[in-house]
Amino acid sequence: MRASRFFISTLKDAPSDAEIVSHQLMMRAGMIKRLGSGIYTYMPMGLRVIRKVEAIIRDEMNKSSAIELLMPLVQPAELWQETGRWTKMGDELMRVKDRHGREYAIQPTSEEVITDVVRSEIKSYRQLPLNFYHIQTKFRDERRPRFGLMRGREFTMKDAYSFDRDLAGMQASYKIMFDAYTRIFTRFGLKFRAVAADNGAIGGSGSHEFHVIAHTGEDALVYCPTSDYAANMEAAEALQTGERAAPAQELVKTPTPGTVKCETVAALLGLELSQTVKTIALTVETEKDGKVSKAYFMLLLRGDHELNEIKVGKVPGLANHRFTTEAELLEVYGSIPGFLGPIGTLQPVTVVADRTVANMSDFVCGANAADFHYTGANWGRDLPEPHIVADLRNVVAGDASPDGQGVLAIERGIEVGHVFQLGTAYSESMKATFLDENGKPAPLQMGCYGIGVTRILGAAIEQNFDDKGIIWPAAIAPFEVVLCPMGMDRSELVKEETEKLYAALQAAGVDVILDDRGQRPGAMFADWELIGVPHRVVIGERGLKEGKLEYQGRRDTEATGVAPADIVAFIQGQMAQ
Amino acid sequence: MRASRFFISTLKDAPSDAEIVSHQLMMRAGMIKRLGSGIYTYMPMGLRVIRKVEAIIRDEMNKSSAIELLMPLVQPAELWQETGRWTKMGDELMRVKDRHGREYAIQPTSEEVITDVVRSEIKSYRQLPLNFYHIQTKFRDERRPRFGLMRGREFTMKDAYSFDRDLAGMQASYKIMFDAYTRIFTRFGLKFRAVAADNGAIGGSGSHEFHVIAHTGEDALVYCPTSDYAANMEAAEALQTGERAAPAQELVKTPTPGTVKCETVAALLGLELSQTVKTIALTVETEKDGKVSKAYFMLLLRGDHELNEIKVGKVPGLANHRFTTEAELLEVYGSIPGFLGPIGTLQPVTVVADRTVANMSDFVCGANAADFHYTGANWGRDLPEPHIVADLRNVVAGDASPDGQGVLAIERGIEVGHVFQLGTAYSESMKATFLDENGKPAPLQMGCYGIGVTRILGAAIEQNFDDKGIIWPAAIAPFEVVLCPMGMDRSELVKEETEKLYAALQAAGVDVILDDRGQRPGAMFADWELIGVPHRVVIGERGLKEGKLEYQGRRDTEATGVAPADIVAFIQGQMAQ
Repeated sequence: MRASRFFISTLKDAPSDAEIVSHQLMMRAGMIKRLGSGIYTYMPMGLRVIRKVEAIIRDEMNKSSAIELLMPLVQPAELWQETGRWTKMGDELMRVKDRHGREYAIQPTSEEVITDVVRSEIKSYRQLPLNFYHIQTKFRDERRPRFGLMRGREFTMKDAYSFDRDLAGMQASYKIMFDAYTRIFTRFGLKFRAVAADNGAIGGSGSHEFHVIAHTGEDALVYCPTSDYAANMEAAEALQTGERAAPAQELVKTPTPGTVKCETVAALLGLELSQTVKTIALTVETEKDGKVSKAYFMLLLRGDHELNEIKVGKVPGLANHRFTTEAELLEVYGSIPGFLGPIGTLQPVTVVADRTVANMSDFVCGANAADFHYTGANWGRDLPEPHIVADLRNVVAGDASPDGQGVLAIERGIEVGHVFQLGTAYSESMKATFLDENGKPAPLQMGCYGIGVTRILGAAIEQNFDDKGIIWPAAIAPFEVVLCPMGMDRSELVKEETEKLYAALQAAGVDVILDDRGQRPGAMFADWELIGVPHRVVIGERGLKEGKLEYQGRRDTEATGVAPADIVAFIQGQMAQ
Repeated sequence: MRASRFFISTLKDAPSDAEIVSHQLMMRAGMIKRLGSGIYTYMPMGLRVIRKVEAIIRDEMNKSSAIELLMPLVQPAELWQETGRWTKMGDELMRVKDRHGREYAIQPTSEEVITDVVRSEIKSYRQLPLNFYHIQTKFRDERRPRFGLMRGREFTMKDAYSFDRDLAGMQASYKIMFDAYTRIFTRFGLKFRAVAADNGAIGGSGSHEFHVIAHTGEDALVYCPTSDYAANMEAAEALQTGERAAPAQELVKTPTPGTVKCETVAALLGLELSQTVKTIALTVETEKDGKVSKAYFMLLLRGDHELNEIKVGKVPGLANHRFTTEAELLEVYGSIPGFLGPIGTLQPVTVVADRTVANMSDFVCGANAADFHYTGANWGRDLPEPHIVADLRNVVAGDASPDGQGVLAIERGIEVGHVFQLGTAYSESMKATFLDENGKPAPLQMGCYGIGVTRILGAAIEQNFDDKGIIWPAAIAPFEVVLCPMGMDRSELVKEETEKLYAALQAAGVDVILDDRGQRPGAMFADWELIGVPHRVVIGERGLKEGKLEYQGRRDTEATGVAPADIVAFIQGQMAQ
């Protein structure tokens, strides 16, 4: 490609609404252009990256026996009503009516349509397994679109759907996709991590997220550096190790006037935060024969730990809960918020202690009286053992790995892929069955597998940038090599050598752009550093007379002189690294 | 590709709503699957064809210096309001509201968005010319979607938009696109014709449609077999050649009771239809200072000719007209419909004669009296020369070619491409300007260029099918060659030769599918004839023992025996034809 025949449009400054670095750099590098809230035109430079990402995904999907088709964007409401997602998805689902008043969804994903295709196509177990995928535009009407391609409304996703005759088959299909995803993200040249994820309400027995590692990532990833264990924060289990120490202090009701947070209580009392226990009061309402009854739960968490909502929802009886109101707090605990505690409540309360709390001794907790906390509280002595002991908290770095192979570390990531064992949730609601070996109808076992194609661009940049701009991994860079001739219009020698090298690199199958725009060197270099092309060759008359071209990798701090005769091989060597 | 790893799903019968052969065959061959009215899933077999079509388009667009980007599907209403198309497009424009009540169009085309992109990116004439294109899903809420991919609601289109500094530049860009389209349709392997088209109300100075030739085509194409002249029916000019003959008959008011059509009048009087003149009465209303005034026009057309609405609209004073009502007819002509004529009207009427009619003598026309016609009518003698002589009719085969190089022929076609000189219509309404050489702002000169990607499939089939199924041109066939082994599971020899040939064809870069499904020969052959793969090789044990494989082209009536050693070269030879 010659730059003069391409469209290059760079900006000195990013627009003010670009909050994160990938959004800023993509705008500045002219890769995307905002059309509306969360809606972007993919400009020529950005589209090249998208196409490279798609090509790698497509290649690995095909190699994994997944079959490409293309499902429509505009999908009849009836299918979405069959699974209940027409209402369940709420405002995120973009709904549209045609001229006859018929309703449609603009697809945010395609479980319904593929299940509809398959239920009419698949009759027999002999036709299974099958895995269909497409790479298609999606729309999700996010409440607050932001971060450019990271949380847009219109975006491109690769979504695949596997169909199997039984659980073992579904798990085998899942494994094939997991391995394909691992190859895909490896080929992108990105540092990534696959982590076990919570399955959510949808059921099924397994789910993994693929994250691109980046300091700026929204998600905390938990992993064990000395084993294979990896999970997202929702799913990572916090073990309790060691024994509860014997009581060493007396229970004392201590004045803590106006001190409602564990941090300030610990500071006031001169104790470690890890000696305090915080209390979360929940109410569960159940209706029976038109009468609503309430049950009260008190969750106990160590002062320095964070509550994990997903884990709370899994505690028996707590699937549907809400926070206890202030009126209820007075009635049940006789206390205002900030001073609640498990010792002495006015009404019966189910005490659910986090595993860590259940193992504490001599701890500090609220006294159910304004401006008072207990210190030196001990299970069994000052209050009964907790009714329920459960894993309620987010893990922290240094926790024991659940596989017993070391301690946990935490890093941040950006979710770019998700593989999911769906089981029969969709096939049952949509009556997608096949005839098994005995001629009996059975529901299809499904898996689904997504990659956020356009999000990959944002994630790749969040992982790879510097103060000059983007640093693309070569596999997904808009161009692999840029040629920057110095005064091509003035020097016949420069022109000749540049054209020779351009032709030679093209012949070698290198994706090269020749910057023939006639810019000054400073502006030209700044453009390509901003755009993030990984390899640059400067062709100048002085260098040529000394028998040298100047090669510089995007991460290099200095250029390397390379003889014109060696440059193609040299670049290939750099690209192979 | 191995058939066992692909998805093949053929049907004996087409669904009853498939009215035309391409729709029937695409459904039967498992290329598309209906999701809703005018909305189809492109199944794996169909998607392969689409991808090949797209690849050829993309290659020729890129070679023509057009630059690919990707504009969003969901486009803010504000842009469409700027050009007035938000209302002008009526119900065909699919409108959608987001969660905040903001309105969007699902793109049916992207003039507004590309003009918005360009007006913010282009500052100077130095950045011109530019031509951007994308290949993107479109949605048009057709009143009556039908014919499968031929008139669907959701479809794929390639749309390109050129931007130039002046008219000459725009015409040069147009020529480049015209030539690219010619190469594209040639590469598809389809018989096609580019015809001059009417520009419509949008202005600009040129427009051509590209049609795939097919007996079943909706459009009539006019061309001159002995010259380059070609136009669609709307645009083809009907010349009048020769002189008006001298009157030979007397004017006679002849009773024609209950005979209102030219056909029946001619039959009653024992005359040729070409001796009759039909009358179309139009009314034009104009409002001035709140008062509506009416003008009456009488259009005269030879009895065997068809009125061309587009041409009528171009007659001075007739841009906005309606048919004259029966009440008006009585008032102006004193006649009921069916007996109107240009001789003797009650009120002043502007007589607009088609060129052919102006040249007639001794013609038959209505007498403005129920149940009477005149015969032997002659211009100048029985009535004044017409006020206006204009081209009002559709051309017919045998008419003189407007270029004077022969006579016209007519064939039928399916419109699959359109190139259009837009001029400044969009750039003016959207204030898309650039600074010219003198530093003065000037509106961009635009062109737009569309190809109906998915429609190509339907058109290709309408042109190429037989009673067994589709006959794809090799360039866009889902596979170029199919290998049909006979009893691959029983014969080691067949298996070995098949695998060898499969590998050899792949190595030669041939897009080959190996049918390893283990079907019986009849079913297997029927599948591939229906799907329309252009080249087939049957590998059987008997043939192999005689040193032969059976090659058969999709249009061949008999197979040809070819030695295994020669088969790759033989196929390549067939493909090169």
